[in-house]
Amino acid sequence: MEQYAAPLRDLIEEFNKLPGIGIKTAQRLAFHVINLPAEKSEKLANAIINAKREIRYCEVCQNLSASKLCNICAAPNRDHSVICVMESPRDVMQMERTNEFKGVYHVLHGAISPMDNISPDDIKIKELVARVSEGGVTEVIMATNPNLEGEATAMYISKLLKPFGVKITKIAHGVPVGGELEFADEITLGRALNSRTEM
Amino acid sequence: MEQYAAPLRDLIEEFNKLPGIGIKTAQRLAFHVINLPAEKSEKLANAIINAKREIRYCEVCQNLSASKLCNICAAPNRDHSVICVMESPRDVMQMERTNEFKGVYHVLHGAISPMDNISPDDIKIKELVARVSEGGVTEVIMATNPNLEGEATAMYISKLLKPFGVKITKIAHGVPVGGELEFADEITLGRALNSRTEM
Repeated sequence: MEQYAAPLRDLIEEFNKLPGIGIKTAQRLAFHVINLPAEKSEKLANAIINAKREIRYCEVCQNLSASKLCNICAAPNRDHSVICVMESPRDVMQMERTNEFKGVYHVLHGAISPMDNISPDDIKIKELVARVSEGGVTEVIMATNPNLEGEATAMYISKLLKPFGVKITKIAHGVPVGGELEFADEITLGRALNSRTEM
Repeated sequence: MEQYAAPLRDLIEEFNKLPGIGIKTAQRLAFHVINLPAEKSEKLANAIINAKREIRYCEVCQNLSASKLCNICAAPNRDHSVICVMESPRDVMQMERTNEFKGVYHVLHGAISPMDNISPDDIKIKELVARVSEGGVTEVIMATNPNLEGEATAMYISKLLKPFGVKITKIAHGVPVGGELEFADEITLGRALNSRTEM
């Protein structure tokens, strides 16, 4: 049986390694890339290299950033005394789209999940505790995913932060229970933020 | 409204330009790439550059190849007097999987389609005519897609090749009419090849 030429086979294999990209899709993408003008395929390759090289965690909120401080943490017009705790950078983007939140964020990069071997030490909880312990924070809004892991993580964190005397709230269950924040529409998420309750 | 950091936004945009990759999938892929170890994301980027740089058309059959002659055209154990004409490199791969065909190929890179402004000059027909005119070819098997454009292309080519006195056949309608060869299973395609008829 004949095979694709090696560089083509390699490319198909690399695409096939990406999440949710099956072999047929990988082939389709590889053929597309080969038929692109050279400068366009190089643009894609460079974007991969650059993103990997330049993106790091913001030193304050742990969100993905191209500089030491992310744009939100560096913005003078944001209220740095209110921290919204979220699981992922995508959740932050979704919250930003509501245009309802004027505070800053803390990105956990996951949720506590004994089933998946993710313990409190595996996500950015100690960084949040350190931030709150430094003072100047009046409210921490828990906006983890409205599922089992997210709720448990919010509960765990709220217990850790109670001793610091900050107000701890969580966004209202306007977001569908069992869903993922990333897919909530702006209006629902905005309302959930506004009707947040004290934990 | 806040935006992703520039290198991340660029990467999402580049993925989003690929066929069938929507914005949500592009984000998922970009976050995946950022979380990969550097050497793995570089492997993907290099595979894109290499495939684009090294893959060209085989000088004889026009299939994608990493060298002047593709592996099939260079193989001494293939029957170079029988040419199977197909629309795409993916179709060739599918035919190879049947393990039924011992001849060589000719890849048209498309089919004649006035609707899409694809004329006979836009696909590799003249290269096929030149090949046949050089002699040594006893049979040309038409295995274009079993749809309107594919059938019309086969008909057009068979008329062009008739003067050379070669036997011209087409694969049997075992392949589903209106479908695309790429998605036919090996057994159907193998049977269609074996029950090919003279055109």
